[in-house]
Amino acid sequence: MEQRPPSDLWDTHLSSGARSIVSSAIRDLLRVTEQPDMISFAGGLPAAEYFPADALAAAAAQVLAASASRALQYGPTEGYSPLRDWLAGRMHTLGVPAPADQIVVTSGSQQGLDLLGKLLIDPGDVVVVEEPTYLGALQAWRPYRPRFVALPLDEQGLRVDALEQLLRQGVRPRFLYVVSSFQNPTGTTLSAPRRQALVELATRFSLPIVEDDPYGDLCYDDERAPLLAALEWALHGELRHVVYLSTFSKLLAPGLRVAWMAAHPSLLRRLVHAKQGLDLHASSLGQAVAHEAIRESLLDHHVPLLRRVYAERRDTMLRALEREMPAGTRWTRPGGGMFVWVTLPPGLDAAQLLPAALEQRVAFVPGAAFFANGGGANTLRLNFSFSDPRTIEEGVRRLGRVLRAMAS
Amino acid sequence: MEQRPPSDLWDTHLSSGARSIVSSAIRDLLRVTEQPDMISFAGGLPAAEYFPADALAAAAAQVLAASASRALQYGPTEGYSPLRDWLAGRMHTLGVPAPADQIVVTSGSQQGLDLLGKLLIDPGDVVVVEEPTYLGALQAWRPYRPRFVALPLDEQGLRVDALEQLLRQGVRPRFLYVVSSFQNPTGTTLSAPRRQALVELATRFSLPIVEDDPYGDLCYDDERAPLLAALEWALHGELRHVVYLSTFSKLLAPGLRVAWMAAHPSLLRRLVHAKQGLDLHASSLGQAVAHEAIRESLLDHHVPLLRRVYAERRDTMLRALEREMPAGTRWTRPGGGMFVWVTLPPGLDAAQLLPAALEQRVAFVPGAAFFANGGGANTLRLNFSFSDPRTIEEGVRRLGRVLRAMAS
Repeated sequence: MEQRPPSDLWDTHLSSGARSIVSSAIRDLLRVTEQPDMISFAGGLPAAEYFPADALAAAAAQVLAASASRALQYGPTEGYSPLRDWLAGRMHTLGVPAPADQIVVTSGSQQGLDLLGKLLIDPGDVVVVEEPTYLGALQAWRPYRPRFVALPLDEQGLRVDALEQLLRQGVRPRFLYVVSSFQNPTGTTLSAPRRQALVELATRFSLPIVEDDPYGDLCYDDERAPLLAALEWALHGELRHVVYLSTFSKLLAPGLRVAWMAAHPSLLRRLVHAKQGLDLHASSLGQAVAHEAIRESLLDHHVPLLRRVYAERRDTMLRALEREMPAGTRWTRPGGGMFVWVTLPPGLDAAQLLPAALEQRVAFVPGAAFFANGGGANTLRLNFSFSDPRTIEEGVRRLGRVLRAMAS
Repeated sequence: MEQRPPSDLWDTHLSSGARSIVSSAIRDLLRVTEQPDMISFAGGLPAAEYFPADALAAAAAQVLAASASRALQYGPTEGYSPLRDWLAGRMHTLGVPAPADQIVVTSGSQQGLDLLGKLLIDPGDVVVVEEPTYLGALQAWRPYRPRFVALPLDEQGLRVDALEQLLRQGVRPRFLYVVSSFQNPTGTTLSAPRRQALVELATRFSLPIVEDDPYGDLCYDDERAPLLAALEWALHGELRHVVYLSTFSKLLAPGLRVAWMAAHPSLLRRLVHAKQGLDLHASSLGQAVAHEAIRESLLDHHVPLLRRVYAERRDTMLRALEREMPAGTRWTRPGGGMFVWVTLPPGLDAAQLLPAALEQRVAFVPGAAFFANGGGANTLRLNFSFSDPRTIEEGVRRLGRVLRAMAS
């Protein structure tokens, strides 16, 4: 009888890129937070009780009764054409009147990020991100082994002057990645003047900009800010260096895995070819159901509903933080989206805080995971969209208790 | 007013890997074949009229009524756990009693192939494939820039002696890729003795084997052949070097984009981590609907139905080829699956034949696309699952006409 193989049997078979793939701090944490008595501020989850389940059920019934052979069959890689047409109309209302053939439907925006990594990054290439930035983007791109340059944020979003300085120094990044509105993880929004400056820099330096916009519609105080994509369109009459990504994950439901990208035709063609090799196409059923649900007016009342619900949750969290956080703790006051970003007094380590918090049955994501090049030990991200106001109050109370115990 | 940018604006921004991404011959052809009067033997499409649409509609209604908050929410990257449990049971009946935590649900098997490329291939690495092989696998892996070594097939499938010779010469491939039953594109099946020999080679040389098995259940003459994964399990009591892939695309419907892989824990863990970066998880809705549809007994009667329908279509195509093909043309007689592989008399070029065929409103895929390193100009692939028997007869008649005109 031979020996059992070692538990790392496959480690010797791994590619160089594979060695830089590590599990997401959040997704591992999500398992813990599935425990029923846990209050979770960890995931970036929408409120499940407000999913438009009835509308989606009616749409699924309609689609499977009237066009099952299309909704269940292989489909075009670019996406379900009625949905692409609808998306083109929507992009038009956002100031980006790109034709439908400049739009590709992706299996979540996460896939859009992976596609961009595959097409644009060679090992060692510079990719500019915000500090902190969406950790799923870091995770998508790390296997392509870029060198991340992380630029600071302030309350007006990315410090565009820091980017300009970098470009003037002769650094030629493959692209800049920016979550333009209600950023994940900080909740900050790029100001209008900086948006304009950024688009001008993109033109001047031929700098590709990846504009990730999952949260733009979840605005609670003001109107939607103009998209970078719209500003570029206003400047050039077409999309050039801006690649725009958005998703139905926050507007309808993430379980559909339906998102989209818009880009210049020369990039879009490549995205479609590359996507053939990834998964052939996004779920036909998910696309057809999403389209059937939204083609009339669902979003016209559903998005305002989400804004009201989430605004109340944000306000509840901000008030609770005011009451419960010990002196020296700071946090952002986002105008939309799903997240508040907390900065603890220097010297405190959020990762060390987490076990005590989990013991008190409250979860968050330590902020370090959002830093491309290390740092951020005294930061953490709180989600306010998933839990109802009473739960938010109780969770922040527990968090405050843990923090005060640790600080004392 | 400045100049419009060149139509290849993004070409200078592409990564080295991106340059090896080209569009699939098939997916481009599929657009042409969507024309209503076209008889298409081109795509690898299941018969849409036999999709279990009513069962899937009932499943969707049930899932969205009883567990919408789960079917519409973000889910675990590994997959929807009731579905993974069901899959573990199914794998058990196929001789692979791996626990559910050695199974990951993917967004189609195409994603499984991309994941393997990402984890296992460095530029220049040798990957062994069959000649010809599934072109979607070539497309998934080309961006990782392997060196493909293509080994010949005969009527018993892959020439395992050629593989052994390669290994004895000291070549150490990253893995072997084999579609073990009713191969795409040739329809051939690896014989039982060669399966045994292959698993023994895998053990002796620590050679990873990627067993792609989308068609195994579509067997029309004999029982299912034993899986390579089952033979390895019999030998070692666990999965080691064999990675097994299968899918619901042919058993239920491809539009769900739900497939699965089983592998040794040390690889499976990596697959899950890498998949986080690709799309977080496969469609929750698709997984929940698939599970709800099959958890009782749908497949017990649906798979036999597909076997009867497709066997008739295969028989119709083989008889029609007998009648219509000019002398000197050869073709395979597959025991299952979806494809017949045709070899034209030497000197004829299937790609040159295609325009004349399309003019006669019949489509196929020229075989060259399935050859990793060129060749196969006088071969072509015919699909028999998508068209009904009368259409198959008419299509082969047209094809015979075109061929005879070309040969004369």
